[in-house]
Amino acid sequence: MRGLHALTLGDLLDENARRFPQRTAVVCGEERLTFPAFHQRARRCATMLSDLGVAEGDRVAWFAQNCHRYLETFFACALLGAVAVPLNWRVTAAELEGLLDSTAPRLVLYQRREVGDVADAARGEGGGSPWIAIDDPSSGGYDARRDAATSGLPQLDVDDDAPVLQMYTAAFTGRPRGALLTHRGLVAQNLAQIIALGLGAGDAYLCSGPFFHIATFMTASAHFHIGAKNVLLPRADGAEIARLIDAERITGALIMPPTITDVVAAAKAHGYRLASLRVPPTPERPDNREWLEMTSRLPGIPAGYGQTEVHGLATLNLLALDGMGAQGVASPVALVRLLDPDGDDVPPGEVGEIAVKGPLVMAGYAGEPSPPEQTGWRRCNDLGRREEDGTITFIGPRTELIKTGAENVYPIEVENALRAHPSVHDVCVIGVPDATWGQSVKAVVEPAEGATIDVDELIAFCRERIASYKKPRQVDVVAALPRTATGAVDREVVRDRRGGGGAVGLGTATATQHR
Amino acid sequence: MRGLHALTLGDLLDENARRFPQRTAVVCGEERLTFPAFHQRARRCATMLSDLGVAEGDRVAWFAQNCHRYLETFFACALLGAVAVPLNWRVTAAELEGLLDSTAPRLVLYQRREVGDVADAARGEGGGSPWIAIDDPSSGGYDARRDAATSGLPQLDVDDDAPVLQMYTAAFTGRPRGALLTHRGLVAQNLAQIIALGLGAGDAYLCSGPFFHIATFMTASAHFHIGAKNVLLPRADGAEIARLIDAERITGALIMPPTITDVVAAAKAHGYRLASLRVPPTPERPDNREWLEMTSRLPGIPAGYGQTEVHGLATLNLLALDGMGAQGVASPVALVRLLDPDGDDVPPGEVGEIAVKGPLVMAGYAGEPSPPEQTGWRRCNDLGRREEDGTITFIGPRTELIKTGAENVYPIEVENALRAHPSVHDVCVIGVPDATWGQSVKAVVEPAEGATIDVDELIAFCRERIASYKKPRQVDVVAALPRTATGAVDREVVRDRRGGGGAVGLGTATATQHR
Repeated sequence: MRGLHALTLGDLLDENARRFPQRTAVVCGEERLTFPAFHQRARRCATMLSDLGVAEGDRVAWFAQNCHRYLETFFACALLGAVAVPLNWRVTAAELEGLLDSTAPRLVLYQRREVGDVADAARGEGGGSPWIAIDDPSSGGYDARRDAATSGLPQLDVDDDAPVLQMYTAAFTGRPRGALLTHRGLVAQNLAQIIALGLGAGDAYLCSGPFFHIATFMTASAHFHIGAKNVLLPRADGAEIARLIDAERITGALIMPPTITDVVAAAKAHGYRLASLRVPPTPERPDNREWLEMTSRLPGIPAGYGQTEVHGLATLNLLALDGMGAQGVASPVALVRLLDPDGDDVPPGEVGEIAVKGPLVMAGYAGEPSPPEQTGWRRCNDLGRREEDGTITFIGPRTELIKTGAENVYPIEVENALRAHPSVHDVCVIGVPDATWGQSVKAVVEPAEGATIDVDELIAFCRERIASYKKPRQVDVVAALPRTATGAVDREVVRDRRGGGGAVGLGTATATQHR
Repeated sequence: MRGLHALTLGDLLDENARRFPQRTAVVCGEERLTFPAFHQRARRCATMLSDLGVAEGDRVAWFAQNCHRYLETFFACALLGAVAVPLNWRVTAAELEGLLDSTAPRLVLYQRREVGDVADAARGEGGGSPWIAIDDPSSGGYDARRDAATSGLPQLDVDDDAPVLQMYTAAFTGRPRGALLTHRGLVAQNLAQIIALGLGAGDAYLCSGPFFHIATFMTASAHFHIGAKNVLLPRADGAEIARLIDAERITGALIMPPTITDVVAAAKAHGYRLASLRVPPTPERPDNREWLEMTSRLPGIPAGYGQTEVHGLATLNLLALDGMGAQGVASPVALVRLLDPDGDDVPPGEVGEIAVKGPLVMAGYAGEPSPPEQTGWRRCNDLGRREEDGTITFIGPRTELIKTGAENVYPIEVENALRAHPSVHDVCVIGVPDATWGQSVKAVVEPAEGATIDVDELIAFCRERIASYKKPRQVDVVAALPRTATGAVDREVVRDRRGGGGAVGLGTATATQHR
């Protein structure tokens, strides 16, 4: 809705400048912005976008690493009723071109450092939308254009049920689809995260995960909402993380296990204090004892069930730490049911499809008609079980999904890339347990008649087509893939025979490392 | 909105039965209901209401003390899209008649014990809506009718922007007006209270204040939302409060200072343990030391600015305990500005009218056209000041208001009652400081020509017309009231000469005793 009862992200930006005039909102490299200073920046950015033709409903694409300029752009879009579209900066030029085709942005903001070549290749000759480099120090660059714009943009009446963020997720089809996340959904998620994590204005969050993933963004957004500080890093770097935890008195961060080793080493080498950071009491590992000694404790290992399509987490274990189900109870802003194929509730103890209702459900996928479920419940395509105490256990995706680190890899996408190779007749991609990343990608290949598979060459072939983290780390060559009676590859048998496993739910994987 | 993205109070009722199947929702006398048991009761009540003709938008009046049946009725109304109207059970029959006239309920639920005579007098001969006694044990009473109804009411698609609660407030005009509170506003207030008070499922709230006031209701509602327990008392009774704090491990309660003395005495006499209850570190008083020794501490004295028209509190000091402004910062679900008469922001340090935007703003007053501010901000008719640190200090109502205990008394209403007496020419009613209740009501009377005022008789005359707590406790008789140049009574001069003072803000007064 618009008007008197609306609460948009633009409203939140304005209010935080009023209620937290002396608090720090964002720290990014040399930049250190109070809420009023950040507010002025975002308002200038909104004028800049408006002058470039961005209006209500338009998309603004962001192809760059974490940066305060992204947060400025996001809130500027919120003020205009426009939609920010953060893109994964690790994709290939071909993938970026596809994402931009489907986004149809009115404006592209991109970064020259590290990813400028990919951006240039994807941009091609095309006239089309303006492209502005965020790290171009000239008068045509982002900073100069923003600073030349007025902060006195007229107040627009924005609909808080409309999307403000288009976040790509490749779940279920293997083809990236833009989940449309709304003002109302993001505000609801902020409040749920504030409650679950017990956040206050004194907290400080280290944004070392990427903003194009919902896990980092929803946590950063909740910190902003309650008046806490967000400290941004362009990518996860152990030494820099250790320095910032000390310097900024960081209380929360999503740090993956391999990086923890580097953080511990840097803290020891430089005498950094990490005691402000609250981390889960994770199981024992060689470097774990030191990590736990140096940091403070969360009450448990944060977990939950979620997906981008419900603005992040729809269940939260921190609200029921002693519950039987590892993913806890429905978020205070979500309704959760477990349904059989007919749409009836399955009884406690039985597995059903997770379904969600309420403000957390996305507005739909960009460019696709609203699903028929608009008047009912969102079917999440994931399986869960309700325990006798009301808590929920995530069982697994209804469709195949490999989780490697915080990334989702969808076998169908990797299989499509590998099948394009002339030596490949058919292929089945599975996830196998990986001590570092939870799972890694394995391809089981049936060669074309008379062909020989050169494994290194096949992986390189794949790497040219899709992002590096999606390529198989292992390739097994088999004479014939097992098949079902209908002739389809029998994925279950491949998994059993070829070491498949290690799968965890999206919610679990992202939330376990939550802060 | 309706459908997929809606989150109504009926949805919350359903969800809590799923996620908290083993937790206690409500304790009231001998009744002890888990969330699923309460859910069944409320669903049966909804069928009963529906069978009695209650449909979307209809009013159901409640004229009774605190009771689990009110909460059943409230959630039943939520399921139906109907509106619960809790009425002050301390009003006179004439006042009740007026309230019922303006409510036009489809159904009246009332209590025979204590207030049956007033109910009967107000009902008169009238056919009209059905009246059902909640304490009638016959087959025509509430319990028998509810238990005879099915819990299998079809799921209705209710609009969460629509009102679900009509709560009377006499602010500003002296005439009671029904503030229309919405599903969305109540859910937003729940989340804000959960954040401010740090509530969890292990909490237990003692509802000793009346549900027809927003302070008690919003706190009880927040406890329900997060899976905590509500323990109900029909009225504040020190000995019973002490017993329940011990027996139910109460963590929060709104207890007025005079009652605290009784609670302490009962705890000492019977050995009740009060340590589960968290209370503010209030200033020293004779019985205060023992009270503080027996109980646990809140981090500060909860306070905030609010009014019924914004679903309770719009600012919360618990989010900024060391802030300069006693009423803290804007709630996480509210936008707050301080405006001059032209609608422009006044600078920090200057007094302006408090204005609120967002889901906390009511849908309007029952039976009145939507105010022109529907597209802008709600002007609260109260004055405040923003401090340099962004926190807010409540200054006072723009119109006269007397606070005696938790009750609002509006001078204009008392003056109207007194002016009807033949011996009274004119009168000015003011609030004077009262050690027990904050303020008490004083009337300064100018007699009619040649008339003599019999003070006791005048007070009795008033008592017949309005609720007892509104009658003057002191009456000064003066030859002539001071008047302004235009001939109006000069209220400021009366206050100065006749001991006026002791006023505190609505938010402060209710929230200081918050739990």
